[in-house]
Amino acid sequence: MVRGAPAIAIVGCLSLAAELAEAKSTYNEKAQLHKDVSSKLEYLVSARPTAVNMKKAAEELSNVSKSLCEKSISLQDMVKSIISWCEKMLEDDVNTNKKIGKFGAEAIISSNEGNSSVQVITHCNTGSLATAGYGTALGVIRALHDMGHLNKAFCTETRPYNQGARLTAYELVYEKIPSVLICDSMGAALMNSQKIHAVVVGADRVTRNGDTANKIGTYQLAVCAKHHNIPFYVCAPTTSIDLSLAHGKDIPIEERPHKEMTDVAGTRIAAPGISCWNPAFDVTPAELITGIVTELGVLKPSELFKKLQDN
Amino acid sequence: MVRGAPAIAIVGCLSLAAELAEAKSTYNEKAQLHKDVSSKLEYLVSARPTAVNMKKAAEELSNVSKSLCEKSISLQDMVKSIISWCEKMLEDDVNTNKKIGKFGAEAIISSNEGNSSVQVITHCNTGSLATAGYGTALGVIRALHDMGHLNKAFCTETRPYNQGARLTAYELVYEKIPSVLICDSMGAALMNSQKIHAVVVGADRVTRNGDTANKIGTYQLAVCAKHHNIPFYVCAPTTSIDLSLAHGKDIPIEERPHKEMTDVAGTRIAAPGISCWNPAFDVTPAELITGIVTELGVLKPSELFKKLQDN
Repeated sequence: MVRGAPAIAIVGCLSLAAELAEAKSTYNEKAQLHKDVSSKLEYLVSARPTAVNMKKAAEELSNVSKSLCEKSISLQDMVKSIISWCEKMLEDDVNTNKKIGKFGAEAIISSNEGNSSVQVITHCNTGSLATAGYGTALGVIRALHDMGHLNKAFCTETRPYNQGARLTAYELVYEKIPSVLICDSMGAALMNSQKIHAVVVGADRVTRNGDTANKIGTYQLAVCAKHHNIPFYVCAPTTSIDLSLAHGKDIPIEERPHKEMTDVAGTRIAAPGISCWNPAFDVTPAELITGIVTELGVLKPSELFKKLQDN
Repeated sequence: MVRGAPAIAIVGCLSLAAELAEAKSTYNEKAQLHKDVSSKLEYLVSARPTAVNMKKAAEELSNVSKSLCEKSISLQDMVKSIISWCEKMLEDDVNTNKKIGKFGAEAIISSNEGNSSVQVITHCNTGSLATAGYGTALGVIRALHDMGHLNKAFCTETRPYNQGARLTAYELVYEKIPSVLICDSMGAALMNSQKIHAVVVGADRVTRNGDTANKIGTYQLAVCAKHHNIPFYVCAPTTSIDLSLAHGKDIPIEERPHKEMTDVAGTRIAAPGISCWNPAFDVTPAELITGIVTELGVLKPSELFKKLQDN
C-alpha cells in the first residue's frame, strides 16, 4: 500500500510511467496514448480523495500529454517525455523536502533563541515512507537533528492504522534520532509535563485560507498546542496547497472501513457489535496554525494565497 | 485483573473478607487478627498508587478493625463484623452510583433545555466493570438512556489498554444503548462535526481543589471540551475525593510497562527499538471541570472542600 500525500502522487505517476515503458508498442497513435494516460490518471485521482497532490499532478501531466500530442514529435518521443516528467517529479520532491526541513528547523530554532536543544511532537508519518525521501514534518526533525539542535522528537502512535508507531518510529530509530513514542491521548499531558517547543505535522491538502486537512488527530493536537501556547507548524510542499478551494470544509474527507479500528494485526480488539466512526483525516483551521512550512519559506496562513499567486 | 478505582477498593476488601472467612480458625487472638488485616491492607494500597479509593477504604477498615479489637467482643464476632463491613461497601457503591447517574443526567438535561436528546463522549471504562455495578460516568449515560434523553454515547478506545474498546463498548452494546466507538485522536474532530452536549469521565482521585487524576487522555479531552465550549463532568463517589491533598500535582502517577503500548493482543505493533512514555493517568486541572458529580449532587470544584467537610 502507498500512503502519504506526496508519495501517493509520485508512485501514481511512476506506476503510469512504468506501464508506458512496458506497453509503448501497443499504441498506434499519439491521440490514443493521450486518451489512455488521461483515463489512467482519472482513476488514480479517485483512489484517495483527500490528498490534493495526485489531483494536481494528474492535471499537470494530462496537460503535458495534451501539448505533446499537439506538437510535431514522434509517438516514441511523446512516451519518453511523459516518463521523464514523472522521473523529474521524484527528484523535485526530495529537493523540496530538504528546503522544507531547513526552513522549518530554522524557524523553530530562531523562535527559541538561546535554546540550543528543542523538543517537538509529530503526528502520523511524513518521512521517507510518505514522500520521495527525506520527508516534510519529519524532514524538519531530520534537519533539527542534523544541525545539532534536537533534544528529542515525540511521535504519536496515530491510531487506527498506527503509521506513527510503525513507520515514523522506524525512521527515527533507523536514523538514530533521539525519540519517544506516545499514544494519541498523551499529547496534552506531555505538553503539560515537559517543555515542547513546536508541533510539526504534514498535510494532505491546504486550502487557500490555510485550513489544513491532515491525518485524523491533527486538529486535536493543534487545539492542545494552542492551549499550551506551543507553535504549530504544517509542513507541506506547495503541491499540497489547493488554491481552488476557499475553506477546509470544502475538502472531501475519506472515511475508512471500521475493521481498521476494531482489529489490530488480524485480532479483534473491540467488543462485538459496537458501531464505529472512522474518518481518516480532519481539518485544522488556519487560526490554529503558526506557519505553513513550504519550499518557498515559512508562510503565515493569511499570506499563503498572495505568495503562491505571485510565485 | 481488577481495574477501575472503586472496583479496586471493593475487590481488595472483599478478597480480604474471603481470606478471613477461610482462615478464621488460624487466629488465636484479636490483636493477631488486627495486625494481619492491617498488613494485608497496606499491601493492597501499594498495588495501584493513583486511585485513592483503596487507600481510603484501607484506612477506614483498619480503624474498624482496631476499634473491634478494643471492644469486648469475641474473635469470631470480630471476623464477622469485618466481613459485613466489606459486604456493605459493595452495596453502598451501587447505591452511590445510582445517585451519581441521576444527578449527572439531570444536570446535563437541565443545561440543555428544550433538547430532549443529548450526545455525550466518555473515556475509559467507568461502568459495571469498574465499580460494584451501574457505574459512575457510565452510570450517567445509563440514566440518560433510561430517562429517554440519550441520542448517542461516544466512547473512546482508551489506548494503550483499550478499556473503552473492550469494556465500555461491551457494556453499551449489552445494554442496547445507542453508541459509537472512536479513536482517542478523534474527540476534537467529533466535537467540531456533531453537537456534543457533555463529556463525562470518571476519576481515580480528586484533590481538595477539584484537580482530577483519571485515565491518560482525560486532560486532552478536557482541553478540547473547553475549546468547543462543551461542559466537562467528572463523575466520582466521594470515596474518590482526597481532601488530604491540596493540588493535582501531589497525586502519584503510575507509569506502566512499555509493552502495553508496543504490543496489542500479543503482537508487536511498534517499530523495534523505539522508546516509550506510558503514564497510566493524567491530571485535569479544576478550571477545566464544569462539575464533579457525586452522590451528594453536582459540585463545583471550588465548593468541593466546604461541602465535603460539612457532610
